[in-house]
Amino acid sequence: MDEAVSATAGARVPRTERGRRTLRLILDAAAAEFGERGFHEAGISRITQRAGVALGTFYTYFDSKEAVFTALVRDMSMQVRDHVAPRLSGTADAIAAEGAGLEAFIGFARAHKEIYRIIDEAEFVDQASFRTHYQSTVDRIVTRLRRGAARGEVREDIGEVHGWAIVGMNVFLGLRYGVWNEDGAPEEIAGTVNAMLRDGLKP
Amino acid sequence: MDEAVSATAGARVPRTERGRRTLRLILDAAAAEFGERGFHEAGISRITQRAGVALGTFYTYFDSKEAVFTALVRDMSMQVRDHVAPRLSGTADAIAAEGAGLEAFIGFARAHKEIYRIIDEAEFVDQASFRTHYQSTVDRIVTRLRRGAARGEVREDIGEVHGWAIVGMNVFLGLRYGVWNEDGAPEEIAGTVNAMLRDGLKP
Repeated sequence: MDEAVSATAGARVPRTERGRRTLRLILDAAAAEFGERGFHEAGISRITQRAGVALGTFYTYFDSKEAVFTALVRDMSMQVRDHVAPRLSGTADAIAAEGAGLEAFIGFARAHKEIYRIIDEAEFVDQASFRTHYQSTVDRIVTRLRRGAARGEVREDIGEVHGWAIVGMNVFLGLRYGVWNEDGAPEEIAGTVNAMLRDGLKP
Repeated sequence: MDEAVSATAGARVPRTERGRRTLRLILDAAAAEFGERGFHEAGISRITQRAGVALGTFYTYFDSKEAVFTALVRDMSMQVRDHVAPRLSGTADAIAAEGAGLEAFIGFARAHKEIYRIIDEAEFVDQASFRTHYQSTVDRIVTRLRRGAARGEVREDIGEVHGWAIVGMNVFLGLRYGVWNEDGAPEEIAGTVNAMLRDGLKP
């Protein structure tokens, strides 16, 4: 799917730079509103107040509260990906890359604690977006590890089950050490898990 | 905490066998109702209809929809534990026990698909019960693995981070292969992850 389109799924795509900035304001305000009040209590007029835009401006981009929520889940999913991706390159091997990715993710969760509230609530509000977020995360990890397998860095039979196991680990470590309580340095937490992964997936 | 009390947290504890059966009917009906409709759409009168008990009977045990939800999360948490526990004994070592536990959990998730709907919604409806469920699951795993470490079966420095990583793996594998799609035999899925854990946590 075209990235520019998928970034604004559920939203009409702005054609101008000014439009893109306005959409960004609305999505950030929606993250704050849904993160703080949850989907059911959140309101479109509260989102526009937070964003400092007129109610009519909201409807230029979105038809409903459901539409902005769907766009927000997609947006947060891509924010995570974009935050983690640069940390993956330049690492020693496929396992080190996953370790750097987890460390970056825990840091992201600490800075964006609302992400769990929003993506987890998608399980109830927008099941399709919830599944897409996790399936695409799994797909990226499996692809990276299979490339590592081709280079002889990890076992050859990397499959979906490994991908789901690793995503589950990362999600729960981000919840526990990113959102609930920031005890422990992200690099140490990621290091502990990465040592397990390195021995566990060795060729 | 006393198990008989914790089993009915949020509920008044029935003193007779008949009372315990009635409470069981209400909790099972609540699982069906919350699992199908979610917390916000669920209704006490619909729960009593499903259970085949009078509305007044409900209030003998619970004060509110919140109270029965809290009791249900605790009840499901203990159902998982009680379903998994017998499978852990008689296994070759600590790692094999965790593998048997994951296999049993995937089976439980297939038979009780509503468990995710209910426990995950607790993140929004009853955060304390949500945290208690996962923290106690982590505690049990860490305790078991440390006993294994004392027997020389796994590395000595097992800690909370390992516990959260394993719980996360299990939860996501249960969601993907238990609730969303039952492709793959639970023993094969658990076997794949257990091989990773065995090498990853070796002494």
